[in-house]
Amino acid sequence: MNYETLAIDIQGHVAHVTLNRPHAKNAMNYKMMDELYQVFTGWKDNFDIRAVVLSGADGVFCAGGDIKEMRASTMPSGQQAGNLDEMLTAVNEASQVVIAKIEGVALGGGLGLVCVSDIAIASSTAKMGLPEVRLGIAPAFISPYVLKRIGLTRSRELMLTGRRFSGSEALTYGFIHQVCESEDLDKCIDDMLREINYNAPQAISAIKALMFQVDEQPTSDTVAYRADLLNKLRASEEGQEGMLSFIEKRPANWVKQGGSDAPQ
Amino acid sequence: MNYETLAIDIQGHVAHVTLNRPHAKNAMNYKMMDELYQVFTGWKDNFDIRAVVLSGADGVFCAGGDIKEMRASTMPSGQQAGNLDEMLTAVNEASQVVIAKIEGVALGGGLGLVCVSDIAIASSTAKMGLPEVRLGIAPAFISPYVLKRIGLTRSRELMLTGRRFSGSEALTYGFIHQVCESEDLDKCIDDMLREINYNAPQAISAIKALMFQVDEQPTSDTVAYRADLLNKLRASEEGQEGMLSFIEKRPANWVKQGGSDAPQ
Amino acid sequence: MNYETLAIDIQGHVAHVTLNRPHAKNAMNYKMMDELYQVFTGWKDNFDIRAVVLSGADGVFCAGGDIKEMRASTMPSGQQAGNLDEMLTAVNEASQVVIAKIEGVALGGGLGLVCVSDIAIASSTAKMGLPEVRLGIAPAFISPYVLKRIGLTRSRELMLTGRRFSGSEALTYGFIHQVCESEDLDKCIDDMLREINYNAPQAISAIKALMFQVDEQPTSDTVAYRADLLNKLRASEEGQEGMLSFIEKRPANWVKQGGSDAPQ
Repeated sequence: MNYETLAIDIQGHVAHVTLNRPHAKNAMNYKMMDELYQVFTGWKDNFDIRAVVLSGADGVFCAGGDIKEMRASTMPSGQQAGNLDEMLTAVNEASQVVIAKIEGVALGGGLGLVCVSDIAIASSTAKMGLPEVRLGIAPAFISPYVLKRIGLTRSRELMLTGRRFSGSEALTYGFIHQVCESEDLDKCIDDMLREINYNAPQAISAIKALMFQVDEQPTSDTVAYRADLLNKLRASEEGQEGMLSFIEKRPANWVKQGGSDAPQ
Repeated sequence: MNYETLAIDIQGHVAHVTLNRPHAKNAMNYKMMDELYQVFTGWKDNFDIRAVVLSGADGVFCAGGDIKEMRASTMPSGQQAGNLDEMLTAVNEASQVVIAKIEGVALGGGLGLVCVSDIAIASSTAKMGLPEVRLGIAPAFISPYVLKRIGLTRSRELMLTGRRFSGSEALTYGFIHQVCESEDLDKCIDDMLREINYNAPQAISAIKALMFQVDEQPTSDTVAYRADLLNKLRASEEGQEGMLSFIEKRPANWVKQGGSDAPQ
Repeated sequence: MNYETLAIDIQGHVAHVTLNRPHAKNAMNYKMMDELYQVFTGWKDNFDIRAVVLSGADGVFCAGGDIKEMRASTMPSGQQAGNLDEMLTAVNEASQVVIAKIEGVALGGGLGLVCVSDIAIASSTAKMGLPEVRLGIAPAFISPYVLKRIGLTRSRELMLTGRRFSGSEALTYGFIHQVCESEDLDKCIDDMLREINYNAPQAISAIKALMFQVDEQPTSDTVAYRADLLNKLRASEEGQEGMLSFIEKRPANWVKQGGSDAPQ
């Protein structure tokens, strides 16, 4: 398929999705939101792809919402608004491990995308922020994902000042999981992909569903769900092979080349 | 108006509220709780005041609840108890950016006040703690605000040891957003106020309401609310001016003197 | 009582519970889960014991679930599954301050036990991790406790990579409260126990119940509960003695020998 705002490149079990509006610092317009939704929902049952690396063209992640488009039109509050939230949900709940690779800037809605990734790695020179308050608007759509990502306390300060912060600060605040020098960013991503190579594809998907289930429900309501899930996974082909490979001190059969060490 | 336990000073768009019982290290008695409630609810629709700096007289934030008053009387569990919670809610949900300036000690209920501020900045020499467990009581009223502020994990340790901790530790634990040397505290507060000077007054209020709405509800229940809020703000005078000023690379019309740089 | 998988030693107001299957790196089998449940529920109303130190035999905390037992049998999803969750709940909601002392490894279910302690202190050489994804299964039972312990953001990365991390990283991620050199671990635990010596036994139990109550309910639903609890504690023997000892600047009558300083 051909996309107007994205570039897609699949290498082995890793898909690279690049936000591709470099003339606008990859600002997110309605078309990009729609295409992201199509791509991620299309991979819902694709276990050949285990990881998705999400980045921006020309060394910039995403400058935020497209302000000109935003100012010109209000956003229909009915179906399309629901679709925007469904895009964030589609990335958040993707069956694959979604890794955000952050260079340049990640502002507003761009930082929202970071908040729905599983693992975020930024260059130390990256700049992030939630500048909406300076524009007289609010980070309304991304707010639940920001709050879940970094908690209420730091959200208050960052949403109410609108100030920019560095990759190192983003690590301290909990937006991202790792910061590295600009020139080491690709190597950091590769190291992370190598870790994921040890991991069982269907277990990845099951663990993601598990986290979202238990995160929004009282603990006592999820006992039966958790017991059933664990039994199902233990009895599954992956679970039996995974536990046997552990006992036999050898790599599981899903570990691909380059994965020379047994899981720890 | 005249207050028995507070000193109020309004300078431009900033209100300074000082806890003013220095003979008792600004310990919080019922009168102070009532006056704080009156002050913050009185400013609910006041968009001329954009920020409130909350501090304590004589270089001490607040030593906690007034133990002598507490020991003498049980607290009526009906209307007045509700009022206490309403005081914390009034500060928490103020329409302005509430900045806590912390020197000396902030203990028990005093630390509770810190937990309902938007931004907290402490001197590195400040001492904080939740000593209730050592007094045979519990941080009952402030507990939801402490849990939302720093999370369950660190709350367990701090509520169950009752130990004191420094400004630097308070930053690590998530109570505060910034720590600085005692002599730099006023400058740090001024720098923060300068950031807030760029920000749209009604957007500040809307963003605070947004955070509390989405924080206590499942994400899927807030889609329509978030879409409507964003549309309303985009179409508002502030939103139109804010986005236009961004496109035209000039300060928005709400940025007051001293705000020489355009919003980033 | 005699236990097959645990060693219990009570010294004064401190109980030491040692996971005791050193031949299997203290891996958690069904018997150990059951014995832990019996021990902690048996102490529910025991206020002579104020703190429980939970550790593993031979310098290893716990290597996780017993993989051989797990692979051989699926876990009954009915009563026993409920019991497993009740074991974690029993430790989590113990009336005493539960201190996890972590050396060697704490993996999978072993790390789950860390997540239900009130205070966790690890040796800098300890290694932790959630390796389930590498075995084709999921940290299903412990997931709510992991999510509450460290939040969704870091859980995503650690559950989806399965990678190991050090004691220092565990502190940064929020699993534990303190890290120290291996040779100082006993001293760190002793210092913590000395802090707890100042604290009122029934207040400890009440504060734990308070935290779990307010953590899972909207703030406005707990106003009456919090007011009643505070009144009850203020009027209690402990509360009256605690506040009086504070006013009289002397240790409260529950402070045992070695507690020479008055509560701060």
